[in-house]
Amino acid sequence: MDTPTWSIAIHGGAGTITRSSMPAHKEAAYTEALSRALQAGEEVLRSGGQALDAVCAAVVMLEDDPLFNAGRGAVFTHTGSHEMDAAVMRGDTLDAGAVAGVTGVRNPILLAREVMEYSGHVMLSGQGAEAFARQSGMVFEDPAYFHDDFRHRQWTEVRDSDIYRLDHAEGDERKFGTVGAVARDVHGHLAAATSTGGMTNKRWGRIGDSPVIGAGTYANDRTCAISCTGHGEFFIRSVVAYDISCLIEYGGLSLEEACQHVVTDKLMNMGGEGGLIAVDALGHLCLPFNSEGMYRGWARPAQREVSIYR
Amino acid sequence: MDTPTWSIAIHGGAGTITRSSMPAHKEAAYTEALSRALQAGEEVLRSGGQALDAVCAAVVMLEDDPLFNAGRGAVFTHTGSHEMDAAVMRGDTLDAGAVAGVTGVRNPILLAREVMEYSGHVMLSGQGAEAFARQSGMVFEDPAYFHDDFRHRQWTEVRDSDIYRLDHAEGDERKFGTVGAVARDVHGHLAAATSTGGMTNKRWGRIGDSPVIGAGTYANDRTCAISCTGHGEFFIRSVVAYDISCLIEYGGLSLEEACQHVVTDKLMNMGGEGGLIAVDALGHLCLPFNSEGMYRGWARPAQREVSIYR
Repeated sequence: MDTPTWSIAIHGGAGTITRSSMPAHKEAAYTEALSRALQAGEEVLRSGGQALDAVCAAVVMLEDDPLFNAGRGAVFTHTGSHEMDAAVMRGDTLDAGAVAGVTGVRNPILLAREVMEYSGHVMLSGQGAEAFARQSGMVFEDPAYFHDDFRHRQWTEVRDSDIYRLDHAEGDERKFGTVGAVARDVHGHLAAATSTGGMTNKRWGRIGDSPVIGAGTYANDRTCAISCTGHGEFFIRSVVAYDISCLIEYGGLSLEEACQHVVTDKLMNMGGEGGLIAVDALGHLCLPFNSEGMYRGWARPAQREVSIYR
Repeated sequence: MDTPTWSIAIHGGAGTITRSSMPAHKEAAYTEALSRALQAGEEVLRSGGQALDAVCAAVVMLEDDPLFNAGRGAVFTHTGSHEMDAAVMRGDTLDAGAVAGVTGVRNPILLAREVMEYSGHVMLSGQGAEAFARQSGMVFEDPAYFHDDFRHRQWTEVRDSDIYRLDHAEGDERKFGTVGAVARDVHGHLAAATSTGGMTNKRWGRIGDSPVIGAGTYANDRTCAISCTGHGEFFIRSVVAYDISCLIEYGGLSLEEACQHVVTDKLMNMGGEGGLIAVDALGHLCLPFNSEGMYRGWARPAQREVSIYR
């Protein structure tokens, strides 16, 4: 039988990520970055800290790394800015916080947490959310901080068109750039956090699944904590994260059965590409995806693994 | 046994609505307005039209009526503008569309439908959503169209404070101003639509549950269609609409059992005041609320009822 203890999983996006298309130095950089983020979360959990603090610590590391489409590495929108979304949820109280379409905030995940803890609301958006962030003393960065030559080139190739591109699109490559973390702490509490820069050249203030509680992010101590990455529209329409929670709570499925059913059967049938990371009330982990790869990692006491490909 | 046929339910918000606090002329005006909206939906369904068209027709009528906090009657935000949210979903395809924080659009529900049908996205927000609306030829109105003396006075009383008020707050009165409709058509398809102006003096680009698919709005031909009205933050955290769908699909509950469990047990335990309207795959209707009243109405062939109080 399982001894309930701590566990954590992280992701840095899913998509057409294959060994043949990945130069060795790039693979090493991703592996290194994922390991560092995982370690930041592990340290919180190992010392008896909260799942909420662990998922935020891991996501902050991923937001600060330009390799991932979140925070510093956020992709360019149609107007050449960076509009970021993030959400966090704690499984013990079902408290949640989310921001949509925020610009200039260094760590959207910390703003989402601030919304959860101090705004009296769950979801804030746009300039209003930025005003709340300034009032709360959140750290802002200049546009130069978010500038990345590779992402800028991606954007200039499509900015005069109606095309919106998934992150990292090169040739046939599709990548759903999102970062996230889920954890169970030694006290038995769960938490989930997700952050993203959305799609290159996105327009019209598009909001994806990441900041939508129940779709891209959900946590409930009775069932599971989930963070998704994929083609957000399908994840919203399928209420993916809460669907897995309900399949466990009402359907009696295990975490793994629920994850496989949603990611492999339901999403694939709709054409919804992507994946997710999940942890259940006993600390079991599941990291399913229906795309060719997903930047991911997980850890438990004395176990750690970081992977990219199928 | 039930003969599957058409049915429709609408709401115009829930809250502290009591007979003693309601002048007779105001009660008559609400009853009349609800009847008209119900009739607009009924006409679509009676002539064999789609559930999607029926819920949009009913919600447009409610948006155009200054009595309800949606469209023309939207409350004032902290900055004196009107930021409206809306969502629509069809149960046959699980297609969905939503807008958050849009200003000047005459009928946000029609914009949500436009998002669903033509944007390639599910959720658009703010000025970006307005740009999409202009490009799509949606009707815009001047601020004067949305001006209402009563709502303006409500706002001037609190605009210099940190207080955000629920719609219609006068003394102890709390009202969650939202409008919505759910329907089942003769073809067996379901649809749901919700529209709102949010909370008086709201700030920070706050987004409530109405435009969040799975929280305030959801439709699935296999289970039910739901439109909620209440303290949105609790409805988001509880993923209310999709929870009812899952209790039916995975938990084997009837529509009525699922609605009562969520509205009476789960939301009440959290302190989440409000209600919802629901229709299931066979056309059964349920209109539960845990507040003192809810503006509501429902109809089936040869049956129609409009009510306000418990």
